[in-house]
Amino acid sequence: MNDNIKTIDGGICAVYGVEAGGIREGKYGVCIISFPETMATGVFTTNKIMAAPVKHTKSIMENNIISAIIANSGNANCFTGSQGEEDCQDMINHLSNKLNINKNEIAIASTGVIGRKMPMKIMYKLIDDLKLENSNEASTNSAKAIMTTDTVPKEYAVEITLKNGEKVKIGAIAKGTGMIAPNMATLLCFISTDAKIEDKKLLKDSLKMAVDKSFNMLVVDGDESTNDEVILVTTKKVDVRYNDGLDPKFQDGLEYLCIQLAKMMARDGEGATKFLEVKVNGAKSYEDAKTIAKSVISSSLVKAAIFGGDPNWGRIVAAVGYCGVDFNPDNISIAISNNEEKVYLVKNSEILGFEGTVNLKDAEEIMKNNEINILIDLHLANGTANAFGCDLTYDYVKINAEYTT
Amino acid sequence: MNDNIKTIDGGICAVYGVEAGGIREGKYGVCIISFPETMATGVFTTNKIMAAPVKHTKSIMENNIISAIIANSGNANCFTGSQGEEDCQDMINHLSNKLNINKNEIAIASTGVIGRKMPMKIMYKLIDDLKLENSNEASTNSAKAIMTTDTVPKEYAVEITLKNGEKVKIGAIAKGTGMIAPNMATLLCFISTDAKIEDKKLLKDSLKMAVDKSFNMLVVDGDESTNDEVILVTTKKVDVRYNDGLDPKFQDGLEYLCIQLAKMMARDGEGATKFLEVKVNGAKSYEDAKTIAKSVISSSLVKAAIFGGDPNWGRIVAAVGYCGVDFNPDNISIAISNNEEKVYLVKNSEILGFEGTVNLKDAEEIMKNNEINILIDLHLANGTANAFGCDLTYDYVKINAEYTT
Repeated sequence: MNDNIKTIDGGICAVYGVEAGGIREGKYGVCIISFPETMATGVFTTNKIMAAPVKHTKSIMENNIISAIIANSGNANCFTGSQGEEDCQDMINHLSNKLNINKNEIAIASTGVIGRKMPMKIMYKLIDDLKLENSNEASTNSAKAIMTTDTVPKEYAVEITLKNGEKVKIGAIAKGTGMIAPNMATLLCFISTDAKIEDKKLLKDSLKMAVDKSFNMLVVDGDESTNDEVILVTTKKVDVRYNDGLDPKFQDGLEYLCIQLAKMMARDGEGATKFLEVKVNGAKSYEDAKTIAKSVISSSLVKAAIFGGDPNWGRIVAAVGYCGVDFNPDNISIAISNNEEKVYLVKNSEILGFEGTVNLKDAEEIMKNNEINILIDLHLANGTANAFGCDLTYDYVKINAEYTT
Repeated sequence: MNDNIKTIDGGICAVYGVEAGGIREGKYGVCIISFPETMATGVFTTNKIMAAPVKHTKSIMENNIISAIIANSGNANCFTGSQGEEDCQDMINHLSNKLNINKNEIAIASTGVIGRKMPMKIMYKLIDDLKLENSNEASTNSAKAIMTTDTVPKEYAVEITLKNGEKVKIGAIAKGTGMIAPNMATLLCFISTDAKIEDKKLLKDSLKMAVDKSFNMLVVDGDESTNDEVILVTTKKVDVRYNDGLDPKFQDGLEYLCIQLAKMMARDGEGATKFLEVKVNGAKSYEDAKTIAKSVISSSLVKAAIFGGDPNWGRIVAAVGYCGVDFNPDNISIAISNNEEKVYLVKNSEILGFEGTVNLKDAEEIMKNNEINILIDLHLANGTANAFGCDLTYDYVKINAEYTT
């Protein structure tokens, strides 16, 4: 944890001038967030089947100006054809009238069932009933409104001290628990900041890098939703430039915030009982480290072993081996840890975790924790990456098998 | 099914001159197969962590001559350093003395726990006790000796009528049930044929193509073993040349045999209750079709839906969408079938499987079968591929969580 980053209250409303609200009725929910004069950017699903709201928001985002975001839960408005596009536009028009803002400055996101028509009557009613304000409660309500199979609302905020001593805030709400019933759980994250970043490319790159290190390193079951959206909106108050780029403290803070939210999603993963973090060091490059970390955290065998409390380094080694990254099989180290103790199972390819050894018994003790780290060192160079996930449990199968279309 | 392919008895011993035997003691087993004058080829795991026996067999295979195969279960002899290589060589030397054959013509394979020393005393004893013969029973015993978490021995044999009317036989034993405890289940397959194929490249390509369409399209949990080996040994009796290549009837027969064995493995998948086949048509290329079929059959969400009897086309569509292959989202068809009936859930991107429709009810009936096909048509070109797998069940999690190193 960086001394320049302080966790604060308020979620997406931690930033001055940002107003939010959330409301639910039965399985449907709507959240609305409004922003003063802004500059915005977004990162979207790469699934070829892209929901109508994602298509719309991507096109709106070309102007980089977002005055409001509307998001609904209960229906993904995906695979809904021209009807879905019309519904999307109708929701935006309705909100545009309500808030008296330009409809071309409204981003939209949806999460829920695929291939069903939007229940527009309910949507209109929820939009009409919703009140916006800048408060902690408003942020929490908006986070609650977009939950599907999430069991807890997800929000976070930080205050960052820049290199020049000035302070800048970043706040967010999010939802996501892996790809789950109904049909699959979208990852949505809306981020506000009072930072001033006028260069569109810098803004986009900043968000992209933060997403790469957080949500893109989160694996619950490997399926990718048709509806994922991460939106960053700046209210342009605090200059965060530094030389030709952004103040690295700002970038650190944004990444820290996104990682906290990604970890919340992992902990809230489908049927998860344990949080798992895979930390890879010593890879030839950042890309290599990412590939290995994601291979290990995606392995059904590793995930099932974590559930069973089994320090099964054989499965870890195999998942490193099949991901296609070049490394030296004769010099790899694998350890597991909780946040206090660390036990090597394999050190420089020497196996310490044999059946019946002290090492294996110590490792089994660590595996009883709810938060487990797998540490992998390839001893090649400085490439490093962390991935976030959870165990594979009976409940994962139960939840996903018992949902009926 | 092709009229030119007839299923016959005898497994790997269906081919004249091939002798086999298998023996088990506790969790260990040894199978030995011997061949008259031969020409051989192999396909091996691409896992960077490669077990000692795989490395050895790969190097032996450069001469394309194999007089015998020895395979053991219970210990994978993987991640065992120079000791593992010595043990490998010692087993080969022991067999070389027993059968009085050149030790450079002995292939070796192992399956079982990773990172444990080979129990050489037991290995020597089992090799000594083993008797070889050409019989149905000998083939079955050898298939039994290499089982780990397999619940049934796997063998198959076919007789193929070539274009010129001549007959050629192919027989095989195999093991594999997905990557499972202990540590992971290797895929092993040993194939004999009386075909005469003197061109090394033709022989290798023939096996590679058959493996691509069968074992490489088999997904139980997506983890790839460190020990996979498929070996094809020819006894050089029946000429199967045709113009510049091989008689396509021979290739059809080899692929058919490998697909039958891959399907047996899918049916025997970890905790599986249902066999699943994904058939993709209309893709731009064979490669595209393969990628889509494997994406759908690998999806934990699709696999859990199959277990739950849920015709969840939303998850299927999503898995098609995120695999990276180019297609037209506005023209895709998805149907499910057993071997008699077929129900469209999506036809030319029109959704027929809405909640409460007759289509969905019919589809739910089909989902009650033990063998389910998912049919996907992209309506673009002629690329086609099939993938084989199974459902994701409580028992999969149970088996993989409860095994302790």
